[in-house]
Amino acid sequence: MQIVNNISDVRKIIKQWQREGLSVGFVPTMGYLHEGHASLIEAANKENAKVVVSIFVNPIQFGPKEDLDKYPRDLERDSKIVETSGGDLIFNPSPSEMYTEDFSSFVEVNSLTDGLCGAKRPGHFKGVCTVVTKLFNIVTPDKAYFGEKDAQQLAVIKKMVRDLNIPVEIIGCPIIRENDGLAKSSRNVYLNSEERAAALVLSKSLEKAKEALKSGERSSEKIRDIIMGTLSSEPLAQIDYVEIVDSISLTSIDYIENSILIAIAVFIGKTRLIDNFTFKL
Amino acid sequence: MQIVNNISDVRKIIKQWQREGLSVGFVPTMGYLHEGHASLIEAANKENAKVVVSIFVNPIQFGPKEDLDKYPRDLERDSKIVETSGGDLIFNPSPSEMYTEDFSSFVEVNSLTDGLCGAKRPGHFKGVCTVVTKLFNIVTPDKAYFGEKDAQQLAVIKKMVRDLNIPVEIIGCPIIRENDGLAKSSRNVYLNSEERAAALVLSKSLEKAKEALKSGERSSEKIRDIIMGTLSSEPLAQIDYVEIVDSISLTSIDYIENSILIAIAVFIGKTRLIDNFTFKL
Repeated sequence: MQIVNNISDVRKIIKQWQREGLSVGFVPTMGYLHEGHASLIEAANKENAKVVVSIFVNPIQFGPKEDLDKYPRDLERDSKIVETSGGDLIFNPSPSEMYTEDFSSFVEVNSLTDGLCGAKRPGHFKGVCTVVTKLFNIVTPDKAYFGEKDAQQLAVIKKMVRDLNIPVEIIGCPIIRENDGLAKSSRNVYLNSEERAAALVLSKSLEKAKEALKSGERSSEKIRDIIMGTLSSEPLAQIDYVEIVDSISLTSIDYIENSILIAIAVFIGKTRLIDNFTFKL
Repeated sequence: MQIVNNISDVRKIIKQWQREGLSVGFVPTMGYLHEGHASLIEAANKENAKVVVSIFVNPIQFGPKEDLDKYPRDLERDSKIVETSGGDLIFNPSPSEMYTEDFSSFVEVNSLTDGLCGAKRPGHFKGVCTVVTKLFNIVTPDKAYFGEKDAQQLAVIKKMVRDLNIPVEIIGCPIIRENDGLAKSSRNVYLNSEERAAALVLSKSLEKAKEALKSGERSSEKIRDIIMGTLSSEPLAQIDYVEIVDSISLTSIDYIENSILIAIAVFIGKTRLIDNFTFKL
């Protein structure tokens, strides 16, 4: 397994692989890898001859008051996880390698980004789409793997790839959870023990919604009340959003009759966590 | 020479070429080809094993009051020019092949687009960058050829390719002119005989500016006055802009000391024509 910092080197290595007819799977990450990322790398390893993992905390997808500076980083630990999971190459560029001083080109998906995290984090998806386009152009993978935990991100990337004819297949992989249900996230490391216990309220509230849906409840408002009620019972939790949307268009719905995405974002102390599930009738 | 209308077919053909190790040159056009386009195709033919020419009048780069509907089209004539100039494949998609009804992803270059045509045609370069990105993703060429007549377009495309790491080399080719000096343009067909004679005032005004520069004039204002004076002497001409800018940043300059671009846009009757030259000290 190699670690490469600059664009021209990573291109050379991948071009050589492609000349030999080897398929390339790609897992873009912001590092501080957990079992969720490992599952993406393993999936890529199963379906491709070579696997590239990028580790880049992308400054342009963070808002001015967000956690760019304190976002956790640990390349040594990450390298071990990539190697164990079957990765062949880590691309770990510096911000200046990715963004020259006069950088001024951006990629934007105008639909799908109005609600959910898009509404709460203005400019976030423009930053995500721009960096993912750049990474796709550098790595030129056959397939790229994204976690379903960032459900809106996955939908936006799929739309961008379709609209702009980017020659890559996007593959979504299921959320990986701790034993007690908390969705794995690099940001879980911010939680102290009290907050870690409180964070369980996210997955618990979604479990309750799932039960109600299985029992036949079809009113978005009632499902939303169930989730809000559970979240509100936790004093350390502050709700950012609870949304019930069509799983393709990501637009709000009143009555549940198709495939829906229930997505939540909740502050536990100062840490913003997200979770979701898709329910098909 | 083949003509292909849909994206998946053109991809298959080009993929097969690339598997055989053949390099691909690409000339994106809006059709109604003239000797300027032919010179691009010839340049592509010299430097690549295969040459793809796209013919697509891109609706999203036209403003609501512009000439989208009456833009001239003649595929039969174009095919002959492509064949004679050394093209191997014409990609001629329909608007619906390129833009699905829910299309919503865009590429934008925020610098370089404020002045010149960008100021006069809001949204134009967003439309150009988006379609060129799509075409690059469909054709995946090694090199792509653009005319220097659209000097701002060439600068914007180069910037986009650099910023977004698009794996293609952009090659600018010199303006091709009629014997009397008028820059070749698909829009010249709009001109009646009186307007055709009047249109000469564009290249004439630039020639006068060139002479003044060669005689040592370094004041942008004075050079601008020379151009404006010549253009104003033609009753059928209505000036859209006359700009003297740095040839890289496209920002206005007062005193000429580096490489500059002098670009003009002039209505002759209802037809908007552009012309330019680059001057290096």
